[in-house]
Amino acid sequence: MTPRDTDGLLTPAAFLARLRDEGGRRYHHEHPFHQQMHAGRLDRAQIQSWVENRYYYQSRVPIKDALIVAKSEDIEFRRAWRHRIIDHDGDEGAPGGLELWLRLAEGVGLQRTAVTSFERVLPGVRFACDAYVNLVRESSLVVAVASSLTEMFAPDILTRRLEAWELHYPWVERTALQYFRIRPPRAQRDSEEAIALVIAQANTRVLQDACVQALVRKTEILWHMLDSIQAAVGPHGART
Amino acid sequence: MTPRDTDGLLTPAAFLARLRDEGGRRYHHEHPFHQQMHAGRLDRAQIQSWVENRYYYQSRVPIKDALIVAKSEDIEFRRAWRHRIIDHDGDEGAPGGLELWLRLAEGVGLQRTAVTSFERVLPGVRFACDAYVNLVRESSLVVAVASSLTEMFAPDILTRRLEAWELHYPWVERTALQYFRIRPPRAQRDSEEAIALVIAQANTRVLQDACVQALVRKTEILWHMLDSIQAAVGPHGART
Repeated sequence: MTPRDTDGLLTPAAFLARLRDEGGRRYHHEHPFHQQMHAGRLDRAQIQSWVENRYYYQSRVPIKDALIVAKSEDIEFRRAWRHRIIDHDGDEGAPGGLELWLRLAEGVGLQRTAVTSFERVLPGVRFACDAYVNLVRESSLVVAVASSLTEMFAPDILTRRLEAWELHYPWVERTALQYFRIRPPRAQRDSEEAIALVIAQANTRVLQDACVQALVRKTEILWHMLDSIQAAVGPHGART
Repeated sequence: MTPRDTDGLLTPAAFLARLRDEGGRRYHHEHPFHQQMHAGRLDRAQIQSWVENRYYYQSRVPIKDALIVAKSEDIEFRRAWRHRIIDHDGDEGAPGGLELWLRLAEGVGLQRTAVTSFERVLPGVRFACDAYVNLVRESSLVVAVASSLTEMFAPDILTRRLEAWELHYPWVERTALQYFRIRPPRAQRDSEEAIALVIAQANTRVLQDACVQALVRKTEILWHMLDSIQAAVGPHGART
Protein backbone atom coordinates (compact mmCIF):
# COMPACT_ATOMS: atom_id res chain seq x y z
CA MET A 1 0.00 0.00 0.00
CA THR A 2 1.33 3.41 -0.90
CA PRO A 3 0.73 6.19 1.59
CA ARG A 4 -2.03 8.60 0.63
CA ASP A 5 -1.63 12.36 0.68
CA THR A 6 -4.28 12.59 3.34
CA ASP A 7 -2.68 10.08 5.71
CA GLY A 8 -2.43 11.69 9.11
CA LEU A 9 -3.99 14.93 7.86
CA LEU A 10 -4.97 17.05 10.83
CA THR A 11 -8.44 18.52 10.94
CA PRO A 12 -8.47 22.32 10.50
CA ALA A 13 -9.10 22.74 14.23
CA ALA A 14 -6.30 20.37 15.23
CA PHE A 15 -3.93 21.96 12.72
CA LEU A 16 -4.68 25.45 14.00
CA ALA A 17 -4.29 24.30 17.59
CA ARG A 18 -0.90 22.84 16.74
CA LEU A 19 0.21 26.08 15.05
CA ARG A 20 -0.93 28.06 18.08
CA ASP A 21 0.80 25.69 20.49
CA GLU A 22 4.12 25.27 18.67
CA GLY A 23 4.29 28.96 17.78
CA GLY A 24 2.89 30.35 21.02
CA ARG A 25 5.28 28.60 23.37
CA ARG A 26 8.32 29.70 21.37
CA TYR A 27 7.15 33.27 20.74
CA HIS A 28 9.51 35.99 21.93
CA HIS A 29 7.10 37.59 24.37
CA GLU A 30 8.77 35.49 27.07
CA HIS A 31 12.30 36.37 26.05
CA PRO A 32 14.26 37.82 29.03
CA PHE A 33 14.98 40.99 27.07
CA HIS A 34 11.27 41.57 26.57
CA GLN A 35 10.59 40.76 30.22
CA GLN A 36 13.13 43.38 31.26
CA MET A 37 11.67 45.84 28.77
CA HIS A 38 8.15 45.38 30.02
CA ALA A 39 9.28 45.62 33.65
CA GLY A 40 10.83 49.00 32.91
CA ARG A 41 14.38 47.82 33.58
CA LEU A 42 16.03 48.80 30.28
CA ASP A 43 18.17 51.90 30.06
CA ARG A 44 18.22 54.35 27.20
CA ALA A 45 21.08 52.64 25.34
CA GLN A 46 19.33 49.27 25.55
CA ILE A 47 16.06 50.71 24.27
CA GLN A 48 17.93 52.45 21.45
CA SER A 49 19.73 49.28 20.43
CA TRP A 50 16.47 47.37 20.32
CA VAL A 51 14.75 50.06 18.22
CA GLU A 52 17.68 50.36 15.82
CA ASN A 53 18.19 46.62 15.32
CA ARG A 54 14.51 45.94 15.07
CA TYR A 55 14.31 48.45 12.21
CA TYR A 56 16.34 46.05 10.13
CA TYR A 57 13.65 43.44 10.72
CA GLN A 58 10.92 45.95 9.90
CA SER A 59 12.70 46.88 6.66
CA ARG A 60 12.67 43.23 5.53
CA VAL A 61 8.90 42.92 5.94
CA PRO A 62 7.70 44.62 2.71
CA ILE A 63 10.45 42.78 0.82
CA LYS A 64 9.31 39.36 2.04
CA ASP A 65 5.68 40.36 1.45
CA ALA A 66 6.46 41.28 -2.17
CA LEU A 67 8.09 37.85 -2.54
CA ILE A 68 4.89 36.29 -1.23
CA VAL A 69 2.77 38.31 -3.69
CA ALA A 70 5.03 37.05 -6.50
CA LYS A 71 4.34 33.43 -5.48
CA SER A 72 0.60 33.58 -5.99
CA GLU A 73 -1.38 32.88 -9.14
CA ASP A 74 -4.53 34.23 -7.49
CA ILE A 75 -5.38 37.87 -8.25
CA GLU A 76 -7.63 38.14 -5.18
CA PHE A 77 -4.92 36.80 -2.90
CA ARG A 78 -2.35 39.17 -4.36
CA ARG A 79 -4.71 42.11 -3.87
CA ALA A 80 -5.30 41.17 -0.24
CA TRP A 81 -1.63 40.55 0.51
CA ARG A 82 -0.36 43.71 -1.13
CA HIS A 83 -2.07 45.68 1.66
CA ARG A 84 0.78 44.50 3.84
CA ILE A 85 3.31 46.15 1.55
CA ILE A 86 1.26 49.34 1.57
CA ASP A 87 0.91 49.17 5.38
CA HIS A 88 4.69 49.23 5.77
CA ASP A 89 5.78 51.38 2.83
CA GLY A 90 2.94 53.87 3.26
CA ASP A 91 0.87 55.77 0.76
CA GLU A 92 0.33 59.38 -0.19
CA GLY A 93 -0.72 61.14 2.98
CA ALA A 94 -0.48 58.02 5.10
CA PRO A 95 2.89 57.26 6.67
CA GLY A 96 3.67 53.56 6.60
CA GLY A 97 4.99 51.32 9.33
CA LEU A 98 8.59 51.96 8.33
CA GLU A 99 8.14 55.72 8.63
CA LEU A 100 6.43 55.29 12.01
CA TRP A 101 9.30 53.11 13.19
CA LEU A 102 11.77 55.82 12.15
CA ARG A 103 9.74 58.33 14.18
CA LEU A 104 10.03 55.90 17.09
CA ALA A 105 13.78 55.82 16.49
CA GLU A 106 13.91 59.62 16.60
CA GLY A 107 11.70 59.54 19.68
CA VAL A 108 14.25 57.46 21.56
CA GLY A 109 17.06 59.78 20.48
CA LEU A 110 18.48 58.07 17.39
CA GLN A 111 19.47 59.74 14.14
CA ARG A 112 17.20 58.67 11.32
CA THR A 113 20.03 58.39 8.77
CA ALA A 114 22.13 56.24 11.09
CA VAL A 115 19.19 53.87 11.47
CA THR A 116 18.39 53.64 7.76
CA SER A 117 22.07 53.02 6.93
CA PHE A 118 21.89 49.75 8.92
CA GLU A 119 25.53 50.36 9.85
CA ARG A 120 25.08 49.40 13.49
CA VAL A 121 22.84 46.40 12.88
CA LEU A 122 24.28 43.47 14.83
CA PRO A 123 25.52 40.50 12.80
CA GLY A 124 23.19 38.06 14.53
CA VAL A 125 20.21 40.31 13.85
CA ARG A 126 21.17 40.60 10.20
CA PHE A 127 21.64 36.83 9.87
CA ALA A 128 18.28 36.14 11.47
CA CYS A 129 16.36 38.68 9.39
CA ASP A 130 18.05 37.60 6.16
CA ALA A 131 17.21 34.01 7.07
CA TYR A 132 13.58 35.08 7.23
CA VAL A 133 13.66 36.60 3.75
CA ASN A 134 15.42 33.51 2.41
CA LEU A 135 12.94 31.19 4.08
CA VAL A 136 10.14 33.07 2.32
CA ARG A 137 12.02 33.25 -0.99
CA GLU A 138 12.70 29.53 -1.07
CA SER A 139 9.38 28.23 0.26
CA SER A 140 6.13 27.48 -1.48
CA LEU A 141 3.35 30.02 -1.07
CA VAL A 142 1.56 28.21 1.76
CA VAL A 143 4.76 27.63 3.74
CA ALA A 144 5.91 31.21 3.21
CA VAL A 145 2.53 32.44 4.47
CA ALA A 146 2.74 30.11 7.47
CA SER A 147 6.00 31.79 8.48
CA SER A 148 4.03 35.01 8.95
CA LEU A 149 1.76 33.44 11.55
CA THR A 150 3.72 34.86 14.47
CA GLU A 151 1.30 37.75 13.86
CA MET A 152 -1.28 35.63 15.71
CA PHE A 153 0.61 36.46 18.88
CA ALA A 154 1.55 40.05 18.03
CA PRO A 155 -1.49 42.01 19.26
CA ASP A 156 -0.93 40.97 22.89
CA ILE A 157 2.74 41.85 22.98
CA LEU A 158 2.12 45.15 21.18
CA THR A 159 -0.49 46.16 23.73
CA ARG A 160 1.73 45.12 26.64
CA ARG A 161 4.66 47.00 25.11
CA LEU A 162 2.66 50.19 24.67
CA GLU A 163 1.47 50.09 28.30
CA ALA A 164 4.98 49.40 29.55
CA TRP A 165 6.58 52.17 27.50
CA GLU A 166 3.99 54.74 28.57
CA LEU A 167 4.50 53.74 32.20
CA HIS A 168 8.23 53.09 32.45
CA TYR A 169 9.92 55.14 29.76
CA PRO A 170 8.42 58.64 30.10
CA TRP A 171 11.48 60.09 28.34
CA VAL A 172 10.17 58.68 25.05
CA GLU A 173 7.81 61.11 23.32
CA ARG A 174 4.24 59.76 23.33
CA THR A 175 3.76 60.56 19.64
CA ALA A 176 6.69 58.29 18.83
CA LEU A 177 4.69 55.27 20.01
CA GLN A 178 2.19 55.46 17.17
CA TYR A 179 3.47 52.25 15.52
CA PHE A 180 2.55 50.23 18.61
CA ARG A 181 -0.94 51.76 18.55
CA ILE A 182 -1.82 51.07 14.93
CA ARG A 183 -0.43 47.57 14.58
CA PRO A 184 -2.71 45.40 16.78
CA PRO A 185 -5.82 45.54 14.53
CA ARG A 186 -3.69 45.10 11.42
CA ALA A 187 -1.80 42.18 12.90
CA GLN A 188 -5.15 40.65 13.84
CA ARG A 189 -6.53 41.07 10.31
CA ASP A 190 -3.30 39.88 8.71
CA SER A 191 -3.05 36.76 10.83
CA GLU A 192 -6.68 35.85 10.15
CA GLU A 193 -6.11 36.11 6.39
CA ALA A 194 -2.95 34.03 6.68
CA ILE A 195 -4.64 31.37 8.83
CA ALA A 196 -7.45 31.04 6.28
CA LEU A 197 -4.99 30.44 3.45
CA VAL A 198 -2.77 28.06 5.38
CA ILE A 199 -5.69 25.93 6.53
CA ALA A 200 -7.17 25.82 3.03
CA GLN A 201 -3.97 25.06 1.15
CA ALA A 202 -1.98 22.85 3.51
CA ASN A 203 -4.00 19.85 2.38
CA THR A 204 -1.50 17.09 3.14
CA ARG A 205 0.16 16.16 6.41
CA VAL A 206 3.54 16.85 4.82
CA LEU A 207 2.46 20.41 4.01
CA GLN A 208 0.90 20.89 7.44
CA ASP A 209 4.17 19.82 9.06
CA ALA A 210 6.15 22.11 6.77
CA CYS A 211 3.89 25.01 7.84
CA VAL A 212 4.44 24.27 11.51
CA GLN A 213 8.17 24.02 10.88
CA ALA A 214 8.21 27.39 9.10
CA LEU A 215 6.38 29.00 12.03
CA VAL A 216 8.86 27.44 14.47
CA ARG A 217 11.76 28.72 12.37
CA LYS A 218 10.20 32.18 12.43
CA THR A 219 9.93 32.14 16.22
CA GLU A 220 13.63 31.18 16.31
CA ILE A 221 14.41 34.17 14.10
CA LEU A 222 12.57 36.58 16.41
CA TRP A 223 14.11 35.00 19.50
CA HIS A 224 17.63 35.12 18.08
CA MET A 225 17.32 38.83 17.36
CA LEU A 226 16.72 39.47 21.07
CA ASP A 227 19.52 37.08 22.07
CA SER A 228 21.89 39.04 19.85
CA ILE A 229 20.77 42.43 21.19
CA GLN A 230 20.97 41.25 24.77
CA ALA A 231 24.45 39.78 24.26
CA ALA A 232 25.60 43.11 22.86
CA VAL A 233 24.03 45.60 25.27
CA GLY A 234 22.61 43.61 28.18
CA PRO A 235 20.97 43.41 30.58
CA HIS A 236 23.32 40.50 31.23
CA GLY A 237 22.37 37.60 33.41
CA ALA A 238 18.71 38.34 32.94
CA ARG A 239 18.03 34.64 32.46
CA THR A 240 19.03 33.76 36.02
CA MET B 1 46.74 49.48 -14.90
CA THR B 2 43.52 47.95 -13.71
CA PRO B 3 40.36 48.88 -15.57
CA ARG B 4 38.20 51.41 -13.80
CA ASP B 5 34.48 50.99 -13.32
CA THR B 6 33.84 54.01 -15.46
CA ASP B 7 35.95 52.86 -18.43
CA GLY B 8 33.81 53.09 -21.53
CA LEU B 9 30.81 54.35 -19.55
CA LEU B 10 28.25 55.75 -21.95
CA THR B 11 26.80 59.16 -21.26
CA PRO B 12 23.12 59.06 -20.22
CA ALA B 13 22.10 60.26 -23.71
CA ALA B 14 24.27 57.69 -25.49
CA PHE B 15 23.09 54.91 -23.17
CA LEU B 16 19.44 55.79 -23.73
CA ALA B 17 20.02 56.01 -27.50
CA ARG B 18 21.57 52.54 -27.43
CA LEU B 19 18.63 51.12 -25.46
CA ARG B 20 16.20 52.68 -27.93
CA ASP B 21 18.15 51.39 -30.90
CA GLU B 22 18.83 47.85 -29.73
CA GLY B 23 15.34 47.47 -28.31
CA GLY B 24 13.47 49.34 -31.03
CA ARG B 25 14.78 47.38 -34.00
CA ARG B 26 14.01 44.05 -32.33
CA TYR B 27 10.60 45.04 -30.97
CA HIS B 28 7.73 42.84 -32.08
CA HIS B 29 5.77 45.59 -33.84
CA GLU B 30 7.42 44.39 -37.06
CA HIS B 31 6.69 40.73 -36.47
CA PRO B 32 4.78 39.25 -39.45
CA PHE B 33 1.95 38.16 -37.18
CA HIS B 34 1.47 41.74 -36.01
CA GLN B 35 1.72 43.00 -39.58
CA GLN B 36 -1.05 40.61 -40.58
CA MET B 37 -3.09 41.59 -37.55
CA HIS B 38 -2.82 45.28 -38.28
CA ALA B 39 -3.63 44.74 -41.96
CA GLY B 40 -6.85 43.02 -40.96
CA ARG B 41 -5.82 39.62 -42.36
CA LEU B 42 -6.27 37.48 -39.26
CA ASP B 43 -9.30 35.27 -38.90
CA ARG B 44 -11.27 34.72 -35.75
CA ALA B 45 -9.29 31.64 -34.66
CA GLN B 46 -6.01 33.46 -35.10
CA ILE B 47 -7.20 36.45 -33.09
CA GLN B 48 -8.49 34.13 -30.39
CA SER B 49 -5.20 32.26 -30.18
CA TRP B 50 -3.29 35.51 -29.84
CA VAL B 51 -5.61 36.80 -27.09
CA GLU B 52 -5.54 33.53 -25.19
CA ASN B 53 -1.79 33.01 -25.37
CA ARG B 54 -1.06 36.62 -24.63
CA TYR B 55 -3.08 36.32 -21.42
CA TYR B 56 -0.38 34.03 -20.09
CA TYR B 57 2.10 36.84 -20.65
CA GLN B 58 -0.24 39.35 -19.00
CA SER B 59 -0.65 37.05 -16.00
CA ARG B 60 3.13 36.98 -15.46
CA VAL B 61 3.40 40.78 -15.31
CA PRO B 62 2.24 41.42 -11.72
CA ILE B 63 4.33 38.45 -10.61
CA LYS B 64 7.51 39.83 -12.12
CA ASP B 65 6.65 43.30 -10.82
CA ALA B 66 6.29 41.94 -7.28
CA LEU B 67 9.72 40.34 -7.71
CA ILE B 68 11.09 43.75 -8.71
CA VAL B 69 9.49 45.40 -5.67
CA ALA B 70 11.17 42.76 -3.50
CA LYS B 71 14.60 43.67 -4.93
CA SER B 72 14.53 47.28 -3.83
CA GLU B 73 15.74 48.75 -0.54
CA ASP B 74 14.16 52.11 -1.44
CA ILE B 75 10.70 52.76 0.00
CA GLU B 76 9.96 55.46 -2.60
CA PHE B 77 10.90 53.17 -5.46
CA ARG B 78 8.77 50.34 -4.07
CA ARG B 79 5.80 52.69 -3.72
CA ALA B 80 6.18 53.86 -7.31
CA TRP B 81 6.65 50.37 -8.73
CA ARG B 82 3.78 48.79 -6.82
CA HIS B 83 1.40 50.88 -8.96
CA ARG B 84 2.20 48.42 -11.72
CA ILE B 85 0.94 45.53 -9.62
CA ILE B 86 -2.21 47.49 -8.82
CA ASP B 87 -2.64 48.45 -12.50
CA HIS B 88 -2.77 44.78 -13.47
CA ASP B 89 -4.44 43.20 -10.44
CA GLY B 90 -6.96 46.02 -10.02
CA ASP B 91 -8.42 47.62 -6.96
CA GLU B 92 -11.83 47.95 -5.37
CA GLY B 93 -14.07 49.46 -8.01
CA ALA B 94 -11.31 49.61 -10.64
CA PRO B 95 -10.84 46.53 -12.81
CA GLY B 96 -7.18 45.82 -13.44
CA GLY B 97 -5.42 45.00 -16.67
CA LEU B 98 -5.90 41.27 -16.17
CA GLU B 99 -9.66 41.70 -15.81
CA LEU B 100 -9.76 43.93 -18.89
CA TRP B 101 -7.81 41.31 -20.83
CA LEU B 102 -10.32 38.66 -19.79
CA ARG B 103 -13.11 40.93 -21.07
CA LEU B 104 -11.17 41.16 -24.33
CA ALA B 105 -11.02 37.35 -24.36
CA GLU B 106 -14.79 37.17 -23.88
CA GLY B 107 -15.19 39.84 -26.54
CA VAL B 108 -13.41 37.66 -29.11
CA GLY B 109 -15.56 34.67 -28.15
CA LEU B 110 -13.41 32.82 -25.63
CA GLN B 111 -14.55 31.30 -22.37
CA ARG B 112 -13.03 33.11 -19.41
CA THR B 113 -12.39 29.93 -17.45
CA ALA B 114 -10.64 28.27 -20.37
CA VAL B 115 -8.33 31.27 -20.63
CA THR B 116 -7.53 31.47 -16.92
CA SER B 117 -6.82 27.74 -16.80
CA PHE B 118 -3.89 28.28 -19.22
CA GLU B 119 -4.65 24.82 -20.61
CA ARG B 120 -4.29 25.88 -24.25
CA VAL B 121 -1.21 28.04 -23.76
CA LEU B 122 1.36 27.00 -26.35
CA PRO B 123 4.61 25.50 -25.03
CA GLY B 124 6.77 28.14 -26.74
CA VAL B 125 4.66 30.92 -25.23
CA ARG B 126 4.95 29.38 -21.79
CA PHE B 127 8.72 28.95 -22.12
CA ALA B 128 9.18 32.53 -23.25
CA CYS B 129 6.99 34.04 -20.50
CA ASP B 130 8.56 31.87 -17.82
CA ALA B 131 11.98 32.93 -19.13
CA TYR B 132 10.90 36.52 -18.53
CA VAL B 133 9.94 35.85 -14.91
CA ASN B 134 13.21 33.97 -14.38
CA LEU B 135 15.25 36.74 -15.97
CA VAL B 136 13.67 39.18 -13.50
CA ARG B 137 14.01 36.79 -10.56
CA GLU B 138 17.71 36.18 -11.17
CA SER B 139 18.79 39.70 -12.15
CA SER B 140 19.85 42.65 -10.04
CA LEU B 141 17.27 45.41 -9.61
CA VAL B 142 18.61 47.65 -12.37
CA VAL B 143 18.87 44.82 -14.90
CA ALA B 144 15.41 43.54 -14.00
CA VAL B 145 14.01 47.03 -14.50
CA ALA B 146 15.83 47.35 -17.84
CA SER B 147 14.00 44.27 -19.08
CA SER B 148 10.75 46.23 -18.71
CA LEU B 149 11.91 48.91 -21.14
CA THR B 150 10.03 47.40 -24.06
CA GLU B 151 7.29 49.63 -22.64
CA MET B 152 9.12 52.51 -24.36
CA PHE B 153 7.76 51.13 -27.61
CA ALA B 154 4.35 50.00 -26.37
CA PRO B 155 2.24 53.17 -26.77
CA ASP B 156 2.70 53.21 -30.57
CA ILE B 157 1.80 49.57 -31.08
CA LEU B 158 -1.17 49.84 -28.73
CA THR B 159 -2.57 52.80 -30.63
CA ARG B 160 -2.00 51.10 -33.97
CA ARG B 161 -3.62 47.92 -32.67
CA LEU B 162 -6.69 49.76 -31.41
CA GLU B 163 -7.18 51.51 -34.76
CA ALA B 164 -6.69 48.25 -36.67
CA TRP B 165 -9.11 46.30 -34.50
CA GLU B 166 -11.81 48.96 -34.72
CA LEU B 167 -11.39 49.04 -38.49
CA HIS B 168 -10.81 45.41 -39.45
CA TYR B 169 -12.42 43.29 -36.78
CA PRO B 170 -15.91 44.73 -36.31
CA TRP B 171 -17.08 41.43 -34.88
CA VAL B 172 -15.17 42.21 -31.67
CA GLU B 173 -17.29 44.22 -29.23
CA ARG B 174 -15.95 47.77 -28.88
CA THR B 175 -16.16 47.64 -25.08
CA ALA B 176 -13.80 44.67 -25.12
CA LEU B 177 -11.00 46.89 -26.40
CA GLN B 178 -10.70 48.92 -23.21
CA TYR B 179 -7.31 47.46 -22.31
CA PHE B 180 -5.78 48.90 -25.48
CA ARG B 181 -7.28 52.28 -24.63
CA ILE B 182 -6.02 52.62 -21.06
CA ARG B 183 -2.52 51.27 -21.52
CA PRO B 184 -0.71 53.91 -23.63
CA PRO B 185 -0.48 56.63 -20.92
CA ARG B 186 0.42 54.05 -18.31
CA ALA B 187 3.09 52.47 -20.51
CA GLN B 188 4.46 55.95 -21.12
CA ARG B 189 4.62 56.76 -17.41
CA ASP B 190 6.03 53.34 -16.54
CA SER B 191 8.77 53.49 -19.13
CA GLU B 192 9.80 56.99 -18.03
CA GLU B 193 10.13 55.81 -14.43
CA ALA B 194 12.11 52.79 -15.54
CA ILE B 195 14.43 54.83 -17.78
CA ALA B 196 15.16 57.22 -14.90
CA LEU B 197 16.17 54.36 -12.63
CA VAL B 198 18.21 52.52 -15.25
CA ILE B 199 20.16 55.61 -16.24
CA ALA B 200 20.83 56.54 -12.62
CA GLN B 201 21.84 53.08 -11.40
CA ALA B 202 23.66 51.53 -14.36
CA ASN B 203 26.82 53.40 -13.42
CA THR B 204 29.41 51.11 -14.99
CA ARG B 205 29.79 50.00 -18.58
CA VAL B 206 29.35 46.39 -17.46
CA LEU B 207 25.98 47.28 -15.94
CA GLN B 208 24.96 49.33 -18.96
CA ASP B 209 25.74 46.39 -21.23
CA ALA B 210 23.83 44.04 -18.95
CA CYS B 211 20.81 46.36 -19.17
CA VAL B 212 20.95 46.42 -22.96
CA GLN B 213 21.28 42.64 -22.98
CA ALA B 214 18.23 42.27 -20.72
CA LEU B 215 16.19 44.49 -23.03
CA VAL B 216 17.34 42.47 -26.05
CA ARG B 217 16.38 39.25 -24.26
CA LYS B 218 12.97 40.72 -23.51
CA THR B 219 12.41 41.59 -27.19
CA GLU B 220 13.32 37.98 -28.02
CA ILE B 221 10.71 36.80 -25.52
CA LEU B 222 7.99 38.95 -27.10
CA TRP B 223 9.04 37.93 -30.62
CA HIS B 224 9.14 34.25 -29.75
CA MET B 225 5.59 34.35 -28.45
CA LEU B 226 4.38 35.52 -31.84
CA ASP B 227 6.58 32.97 -33.64
CA SER B 228 4.97 30.24 -31.55
CA ILE B 229 1.43 31.48 -32.14
CA GLN B 230 2.03 31.88 -35.86
CA ALA B 231 3.55 28.40 -36.13
CA ALA B 232 0.47 26.96 -34.44
CA VAL B 233 -2.36 28.84 -36.15
CA GLY B 234 -0.84 30.74 -39.06
CA PRO B 235 -1.03 32.76 -41.20
CA HIS B 236 1.70 30.61 -42.66
CA GLY B 237 4.29 31.96 -45.06
CA ALA B 238 3.58 35.48 -43.89
CA ARG B 239 7.31 36.22 -43.85
CA THR B 240 7.66 35.83 -47.64
